[in-house]
Order: sequence, then structure tokens, then C-alpha cells
Amino acid sequence: MTLHIRAALAARDAADPLAFAQARFTLPPGVIYLDGNSLGPLPAATPARLAEVVAREWGEGLIRSWNDAGWIDLAMTLGARIAPLLGAAPDSVVACDSVSVNLFKLAGGALALQQAADPARRVLLCEADDFPTDRHVLEGLAAATGAELRTVPRGGVPAALGPDIAVVVLAHVHYATGAVHDMAALSAKVTAAGALSLWDLSHSAGALALALDADGADFAVGCGYKYLNGGPGAPAFAYTAHRHQATLWPPLRGWMGHAAPFGFSDHWTPADGVRRLLAGTPSILALAALGEGVASFDGIDMTAAEAKSRALVMLFADLVAAHCPAVTVEPPGARHGAQVILRHPQGRRVMAALIARGVIGDFRPPDRLRFGFPALYTRFVDVSDAVDHLAAIIESGEWRDSRFDVLGVVS
Amino acid sequence: MTLHIRAALAARDAADPLAFAQARFTLPPGVIYLDGNSLGPLPAATPARLAEVVAREWGEGLIRSWNDAGWIDLAMTLGARIAPLLGAAPDSVVACDSVSVNLFKLAGGALALQQAADPARRVLLCEADDFPTDRHVLEGLAAATGAELRTVPRGGVPAALGPDIAVVVLAHVHYATGAVHDMAALSAKVTAAGALSLWDLSHSAGALALALDADGADFAVGCGYKYLNGGPGAPAFAYTAHRHQATLWPPLRGWMGHAAPFGFSDHWTPADGVRRLLAGTPSILALAALGEGVASFDGIDMTAAEAKSRALVMLFADLVAAHCPAVTVEPPGARHGAQVILRHPQGRRVMAALIARGVIGDFRPPDRLRFGFPALYTRFVDVSDAVDHLAAIIESGEWRDSRFDVLGVVS
Repeated sequence: MTLHIRAALAARDAADPLAFAQARFTLPPGVIYLDGNSLGPLPAATPARLAEVVAREWGEGLIRSWNDAGWIDLAMTLGARIAPLLGAAPDSVVACDSVSVNLFKLAGGALALQQAADPARRVLLCEADDFPTDRHVLEGLAAATGAELRTVPRGGVPAALGPDIAVVVLAHVHYATGAVHDMAALSAKVTAAGALSLWDLSHSAGALALALDADGADFAVGCGYKYLNGGPGAPAFAYTAHRHQATLWPPLRGWMGHAAPFGFSDHWTPADGVRRLLAGTPSILALAALGEGVASFDGIDMTAAEAKSRALVMLFADLVAAHCPAVTVEPPGARHGAQVILRHPQGRRVMAALIARGVIGDFRPPDRLRFGFPALYTRFVDVSDAVDHLAAIIESGEWRDSRFDVLGVVS
Repeated sequence: MTLHIRAALAARDAADPLAFAQARFTLPPGVIYLDGNSLGPLPAATPARLAEVVAREWGEGLIRSWNDAGWIDLAMTLGARIAPLLGAAPDSVVACDSVSVNLFKLAGGALALQQAADPARRVLLCEADDFPTDRHVLEGLAAATGAELRTVPRGGVPAALGPDIAVVVLAHVHYATGAVHDMAALSAKVTAAGALSLWDLSHSAGALALALDADGADFAVGCGYKYLNGGPGAPAFAYTAHRHQATLWPPLRGWMGHAAPFGFSDHWTPADGVRRLLAGTPSILALAALGEGVASFDGIDMTAAEAKSRALVMLFADLVAAHCPAVTVEPPGARHGAQVILRHPQGRRVMAALIARGVIGDFRPPDRLRFGFPALYTRFVDVSDAVDHLAAIIESGEWRDSRFDVLGVVS
């Protein structure tokens, strides 16, 4: 990039009202990290907090910390702290398990609600090409319950709604392309057709401004290890709108979701509200790390965060189009996830070459290079520096080097 | 206790061939910890290992650590390290999720296997009074699938076996009483009746010598945060005998259990073996901590560990019977878990008074005080010192103090 452009971008960084949040993260020197949409970086506060939980709460407090350190309520108190990022009431979110497990609980519980009211509502509806685990979960749920899984092409949900549709699972932001659904409009259509909506916010939470309650979503799940910076495999979250909290019975039930876990009673009586979504004992270490990830959003206005990511995304798309003609840019939509897809026939090798230069994105088959632009720690100069590396790799043919034959199993 | 008795027990500790393992744990001064059956103490190696995973693997390695630090295989490599403690082949155990979630996956998968062969086999059988989460999980599974949950009194499984029984869930060691089932004999009866056995090892793994493969168990689950010292809410494990590994399809399926997670294919093709039991992305921090807990068993012969716990259990029962006449000792069976139950009408207050003195056990309604004696870090003098405190509390009526009105929600 010309020195002129880079200086202008550095000035933009200096004027960025969210720049203060960069200091909340520990990023290794020499790395331009554009993969926070896959694994958020380490918050600076996490090591000390985790060390305290381990040494003091576990090591010294031992079993007493279930009461004294608030472990018994941690899944709920953390859920309440995630809720504002989702536009949700604090008592409608719980942090636990994985996206897959929470999706199973909510989709299964929603299906049971529908079946009780009308046995003809037996179809689980989702879009083809969404993140596979959503379909895997629904496929397994359908096989176990006798429900039917029906997939439609992207955008096909409204036309597929009908009297047999029980639950509609939709990804708010598409994991690969970054395309965004209109949550309010689609939720309204789902509701009008008598179905229940279940939103997967894995690529939305912490990236876009969300309004689950106002948009009329029925249920939602989302990921703790991407934009929420909770660490590798961090616990997920689950949301239930107030109107369903008293009636939802998840098919997967455990003692921690019981109204009186230490009453050791024979039958499962659900705890009030979303606490019933807890199954087994949640990992306190994992929840503690997620807590620091969520704290990295303290004082952040998500509308401003979405706007900054949007600016980073558009800058990246424009610079790539201008400087890397051999690469195809998937044009970001009018509203878009904090991510951009580039296409190159040798995308896997190009990404390996980028990573070798310290520019970290990821690869999604067959030819997609995916880059994320979280607002909290991505600078405008990071964008232009990354494009400089990409242009150099493409121009020089560096990606042909035999070092880049294999990128690894996770890419 | 008389000085004479204590000196004799100190000598026994000095001669204990497992005494070397005590240094593997960090226990706070002034605490006699007899609740490792509920939450294992902090291994001395855990803080440094966790700090390394956080700072180096996550902080510096970032997304690259899925390959470079072996995260992608951690659930399997850790499962292989747990397997010897269970008498299981290394490739038959995976570490992930919670006991509740794994129980759901295995019971649901086993039910589906049975239903495919014979639709009349639709009953999930378990014992009343086992740990409630097992029943909650089966209740939810039955409601979702149309199967029937049938409970029998303890010991009633053999008489209840018949052509309609699909899956039998049994706790190897009872969570409260410590009573042990004969795994080989019961598994054989279950198999002979055409049913499948699923053992809950939550209070066995790391306490007793186990032989899952040799005993003919079909499936098993167990807990990482009790005797395995993995930390609060540590991931659980799941076992599948070789003969079922290729045919078991869990009802709860996710991308990490797919044969090619990064192929992003439409349909779920199970990974080989027990890896298919993974659903969502497992918490790497939680697995890393569990890894250190499992490492605390390095070089430990589980037969010797069980024998030492047996000696501690019998010593405790004998000393309480001799010195605390107002307390009822539930006599340990011929084979017994590493735990003892005492009964006292004011058990909750007595336990609170013990904890105030630094003797930590737990309380199980209505009147049971539960004490655990893990072999790796419990000393013989700890047993007699604990009984001294108990005798003093009972004799002085200290438990009547208003300080002990409430013990806390987790007790």
C-alpha cells in the first residue's frame, strides 16, 4: 500500500472511538489476526482470572466454592452478562455446553411443544449449506423422535412454511459467506405460520447489534469461542424468549437444570426459566474464561462495533479488488457479518502462505479464504497490511512453494 | 485419638507405598479434605499447565493450535489416557461433555440399535435411588423417543430383564451409600437377556480397579471432576466396547463427531470409533485441566489404590463406631466405594460444624454425612484426626450453634 494510504488509515485508527478496546487483548507480535470469527484472541485479563479461579477458588476453596465463589449460579450470572450483547432480557440467557448440545435441547423442546399442541407439526426446517452441525443435530433429533428434517435452499424458508412445520432453524450470519438474515422479518413470518424460530447466532453474537427480544425470536443459541473471546471450545449460550420459558421441557435433562438439584428427587422438575437448560455440571474453568471474554465488551456499544466492522470489511473488499486482481471478492451485502470471503482456485495454498507471513485467516472448501474483522482489536492498518501480504503472495507466486502443500486438519 | 493410635497411623502413612502421590496435590493448610468424591483437589501441576495452554497455545498459537498443539485430537488422546484406569482399550474412550450429555448419547444410541433389531425392545431400565441425573436423562430420552422408562428397586435388575428391555443403566458405585455392583455378573445377565448395559462410573473411576472390557460392559460414562481431579465441572468420559463402535449412532450428533469435520458436508457420517461421540467443540481449557488430573494417576496401580481406600474406609468406620456412639455408621460392603456414609438426625448441622473445623465432607438428604477417601492424597492420620473432630462436635453439642443453621445450596 502506498505510504499515503497507510498514513491515512493510521490516522483513522488514532481517531477510532473503539481503539481503547485493543489493549484488552494479548496478540502475539508480528501477527495480523483475521480469524477471530473462528477463535477469538486471548483477553489480557484472562490468565490472571483463570489462575485465581484455579488456585484460590478450586485449590483453597475446594467444594465450598460452589457456594462461596458463586459457581452454582455462574452459568446464569454469565448468561445475564451475555444477554445485553444479544438484545435479550438478562434472565433469558444461560451459558453452558456447546452450540450443538444447546441446539438439540432447544430444537427438541420446541418440537415437543408443537407436537403437544398439534401432532401434525412434525417438520424441522432449515436451510441447506448452513453450518453443518446445525443440520447434524436436527438429523439426529429427527431420527430419535420420528420428526422430519426438511432442508430448503437459502432464502427458501418463507415459501416452505406451512401447517406441518414445527421448528425453523436459521443462522443469522452465514458461517462462510457472512450473509445476514433479517431476524425481525423472518421471525414474524415463522410466527405467523404457527412455527417456532430458533436462531443460530454463532457468527453474530459479539459482531453485530442484535435485538432478540424486539425481533420476536423464539429461541437462540450461539458460540462462546468466536467473537465472545471465551477461549478454544468455550461454552456456548442458549436463549429462550420469556413467553416460552415456563413451558419448554428440553429432551436432554440433567440434575443442574432441576428445580432442586440437591433435593435428589426421583423425577425431573424443571428449574424456573432458562436454568432448566442446564444438564450436567458446567465447567467452571471454561465459564470463568468465557466471563473474561464477555468482559472485553464492557462499555462497547454494539451498534458502533458493527459499524466499525462494516468499515473494515468494506475497506478490505475494496483494497483486495484494487490490488489483487487474481482474487475474487464476494461482495458484502447491505448488512453483513464481520467477515469477508475471497475466492482463489488455490485458496488453500494461498491461505497457508498468508499464515506463514503472520496473516491469519482460514480456509473453507472448495476455494474460499475467510477473513474476520472484529471491531474490538482489528485496526484499519491491519487491513491494508494484510492486503499488501496477499498481493505480494499472488504476484510472486509464493503460494506455489512446497511448504504450502498441507495446511493442517483444521484450516 | 490417643497419641498411641495416632503414632501407629503415622507409621502406617510413612510405610504407604502410595504416599508419593500426595505431593501431586495442593491442599490448603488446616484442611482435612474428605470430599474428593465430590470435587477432587487441585493437582500441583495444573496451574502451570493451564497457564501454558492459555498464554502459549491460545494466546500465541491462536487458531493454529488446533493443529500445532494437538487440540483437534485432545478429546481422543485424553480418552486413551483415561482408558487404563477403566480397564478399557485406549481407543474405546473419549473425554467430552458432561456425564448427563454422554449418558443421553449412549443410551439413545443403544436404544436405536435395539429398536432397529427388534421394535419390541423399548424399555430403558434403571434402579430407583441412583444418582438423579441418570434418571432425568432417561426420562427425557423416553419422552423424546416414545421409549418407556422403568425403574426397579436396587438389586431388581436381573428379575426385570425380559424381551422388552433395550438398555439397562447401572451405577457401578452408588453415589450416596458407596455400594458396589458386580459388573461382570450383571453385564453377563444383561447380555444374556438381549439387552445392552450402560454403566455409570462417576463414583468408580479413579477409586476402584475397573475392567470394563473384561467384564463385558457394553457402554459406560463417568465423571472427570471427582476422583479424576479434573477441576470443577471437568469434562466427563464415554466408553463404547469395540463390538459396538462401528454401529452406534448417537441421537445427539455434531460436527466434531463427523468423519470429516472440515469437509462441511450436508449429512452426518460418523467418525471411526468413539470419536463419533463428540458433538460440539470441546473446551480445550477444561480438557487440559482434566489431563493433569488424569496424570495424577501416573504409575498408580488401581488395585493398590482400591486396597488403600478400603483400609481408610474401614479405619474410619471402626473409629467412628468406637468414638461417636450417637452417629450411625452404614457398614461398608465386602467391596465398597472409596466413601462412607454416617447418619445423624442433625446431619446437615454436624457437617457444617465439621467444615467450620476444616474437615470437609458433604451432606446428602435426609440425614447422611458422606466422606470420601481417595487413595492418592488421603492419609491414615487424616482419618483419625477427622474422627477426633467429629467426636468433639457430637460430645460438645457444637453443632447446635446458630452459625450452622445454613450450610449452603450445595452441600
